[in-house]
Amino acid sequence: MPLTANDPNRKTWLHVPENSDFPIQNIPFGVFLTRDDVITIGTRIGNTAIDLAALHQLGYFKGVPLTDDIFLQDTLNDFIDDGRKTWRLTRNRIAEIFDKENPSLQNNKEHRDIVLFDMDEIEMQLPVHIGDYTDFYSSKEHATNVGTMFRDPDKALLPNWLHIPVAYHGRSSSIVPSGTNIHRPMGQTMPAGAETPVFGPSRLVDFELEMAFIATDGNQLGEPIPIEKAEEHIFGLVLLNDWSARDIQKWEYVPLGPFLAKNFASSISPWIVTLDALEPFRVAGPQPIKEQLPYLQYEGEKSYDIHLEVAITPENSSPTTVCRSNFKYLYWNMAQQLAHHTVNGCLINSGDMMGSGTISGPTKDSYGSMLELTWRGENPIKMADGTERKFINDGDTVTMTGYCKNNEVRIGFGEVSNKLLPPFNKK
Amino acid sequence: MPLTANDPNRKTWLHVPENSDFPIQNIPFGVFLTRDDVITIGTRIGNTAIDLAALHQLGYFKGVPLTDDIFLQDTLNDFIDDGRKTWRLTRNRIAEIFDKENPSLQNNKEHRDIVLFDMDEIEMQLPVHIGDYTDFYSSKEHATNVGTMFRDPDKALLPNWLHIPVAYHGRSSSIVPSGTNIHRPMGQTMPAGAETPVFGPSRLVDFELEMAFIATDGNQLGEPIPIEKAEEHIFGLVLLNDWSARDIQKWEYVPLGPFLAKNFASSISPWIVTLDALEPFRVAGPQPIKEQLPYLQYEGEKSYDIHLEVAITPENSSPTTVCRSNFKYLYWNMAQQLAHHTVNGCLINSGDMMGSGTISGPTKDSYGSMLELTWRGENPIKMADGTERKFINDGDTVTMTGYCKNNEVRIGFGEVSNKLLPPFNKK
Repeated sequence: MPLTANDPNRKTWLHVPENSDFPIQNIPFGVFLTRDDVITIGTRIGNTAIDLAALHQLGYFKGVPLTDDIFLQDTLNDFIDDGRKTWRLTRNRIAEIFDKENPSLQNNKEHRDIVLFDMDEIEMQLPVHIGDYTDFYSSKEHATNVGTMFRDPDKALLPNWLHIPVAYHGRSSSIVPSGTNIHRPMGQTMPAGAETPVFGPSRLVDFELEMAFIATDGNQLGEPIPIEKAEEHIFGLVLLNDWSARDIQKWEYVPLGPFLAKNFASSISPWIVTLDALEPFRVAGPQPIKEQLPYLQYEGEKSYDIHLEVAITPENSSPTTVCRSNFKYLYWNMAQQLAHHTVNGCLINSGDMMGSGTISGPTKDSYGSMLELTWRGENPIKMADGTERKFINDGDTVTMTGYCKNNEVRIGFGEVSNKLLPPFNKK
Repeated sequence: MPLTANDPNRKTWLHVPENSDFPIQNIPFGVFLTRDDVITIGTRIGNTAIDLAALHQLGYFKGVPLTDDIFLQDTLNDFIDDGRKTWRLTRNRIAEIFDKENPSLQNNKEHRDIVLFDMDEIEMQLPVHIGDYTDFYSSKEHATNVGTMFRDPDKALLPNWLHIPVAYHGRSSSIVPSGTNIHRPMGQTMPAGAETPVFGPSRLVDFELEMAFIATDGNQLGEPIPIEKAEEHIFGLVLLNDWSARDIQKWEYVPLGPFLAKNFASSISPWIVTLDALEPFRVAGPQPIKEQLPYLQYEGEKSYDIHLEVAITPENSSPTTVCRSNFKYLYWNMAQQLAHHTVNGCLINSGDMMGSGTISGPTKDSYGSMLELTWRGENPIKMADGTERKFINDGDTVTMTGYCKNNEVRIGFGEVSNKLLPPFNKK
């Protein structure tokens, strides 16, 4: 199945602003509410949202093996379940429909009026029903920074870290799309030197710069997915802000891991960029430092060169970029993560989400959390408006962006952007 | 809303064997596949399964505010979502329909033939779609035993344990009903004294005797459920075997908690026994040892006197009871668990499941896992067939049962019973 949708020479008849994350070579998938209050599956080119259900109903997917209602749904799970061949046929067809040389929809105003929306006419939804959310811990720099701060700087990496793509289960119910406001969580903390814990608003709310992949069905309970097959079962990627309350985390996390420090909110960008669209940006990840067990050994380039940024915008102010990182820094790649996750037979369902863990790079400005950027608050960051931040303040909006770029094309993720509100107060 | 379904003097026209877990005072809820290959929601009295969808269609729930298709579903989520008032009206009505004094269904053979099934004609399914599964760690005896074995016997309980109902997120996709066979997981372990980890079948597969409650919608994202309201949002309880691979767990769990050691399988009993049915068996739990923060303070009896047993049945052999415990031993109760889970605003959806954690009691025969019963394998348990067990062998069936009993009535849970097979081998 050739990825003709990736042809860098293709031009579209839709307007695409310069430096758009969404040229015709991207064709991500998402779910949105239209101006007619209908929820549909769609894609995006430039600033135009495209209603795929309507397009399908009008016959534009003839020959692609899709059920009639595959896009008339409020999640992408069934489409993802259809498998990689179908995703590719669909993406290729969309590229053809919007190709400058193709007059069929281009010259049909009636159809265009049904199918096309301005981005500001629609409301993006969560793209998938996430049955299970797993969060990895795959950045060596992040694990080292955290280990240095909270444990022993000389043994910052725990003994298992170079052998296992360490992960834990997250909470699905609290995953929200970009744009949803998030409340500062209340919780228990143990102040330094105190005898008993106290209850109150978390004082150390943080972001975690992550990306997450959306998986498809790939096994039955008990059956592993071998590493060579893993990428077949990865649909695409989103940006993920895994909001964290550091003071709650510190007190609660022993011995079973983080819980309330994380499950008050995780936010994702609403467009799933397919692994296929990222194909031109494959790179090798870091070389293994220790030999890995055979089930984790892989061949070829398994990482992607994705530039990542985080900006903080104080209320009524302008944004300050606080972090510049890259997906390629991750020590463990997605194929290793999925192979490890299933080596014990754990069942993966279509729509399951796997976070990368905080993506910190080698330089101090590439750390993926305020905890690391300010080194536990010791080195506050200056904002454009003159204020300082150790962690996130009420009223701040945290915005993460990501894109790949070469000489021919830019494939981006849009953004995940959410505002932190004061603790919930029932009216 | 009086719980007339609990009337201990009520007799039914259905046959109920002596010592049945399912007298007319129980009326649990489950989902089953009928002999006609239809999936329906049902209840059980004695050894008779009752098709509630058919009963509803025949008009027996007139006056109870239920949508037409509420029972014609493959999960109980929507019914649970309807709230406690509806659960109570439904349970009361079912009690009336099967009351010995009520001739309507009793004397209508045509209806009886549609509605009633022998238990061996049907196949029980998972009762709910579990969006998120949380596992608590609420037995002080269990936490103390584990801390003694793996950390410091003098500081067996970690500093946070008496202040926080410690919990972590589990994996929903691997939750299976009683009767599903489970494969011994493969995985990484670090043998004592070795320099590098090895890969192979887990050698230390264990059960964990737990119970789990099924919650209903009770908040919006950001909003806590106060402890006084918590029980309103608990539908009922099941038995839970949280299968564990101790050797995988030991190597992987630092610092983010157990992952592959747990997510290969968790099994539950298929009938959800309502909190209402357990009302006569309320007892006080253990007194708090340290003062708890106000959001965890409660009034009244918040635990239940539920006898629990675990038996191991080797292949082609007879069962040996290895553990006798009780739900009432748990230090943290369900109201505290739910209040804690949501104090940071974590969203609870209808059908979410919360495990109690391993329920160990004060005596050595009441420990809820082989790890504790055999004290890491140091004291193997003798089986009825003369063999010994340190952990679970391939071919062994692990069966957990639970019931409440007073002078008037016995309310039971049936069983969760699953066989351990050798590692998965693709044909």
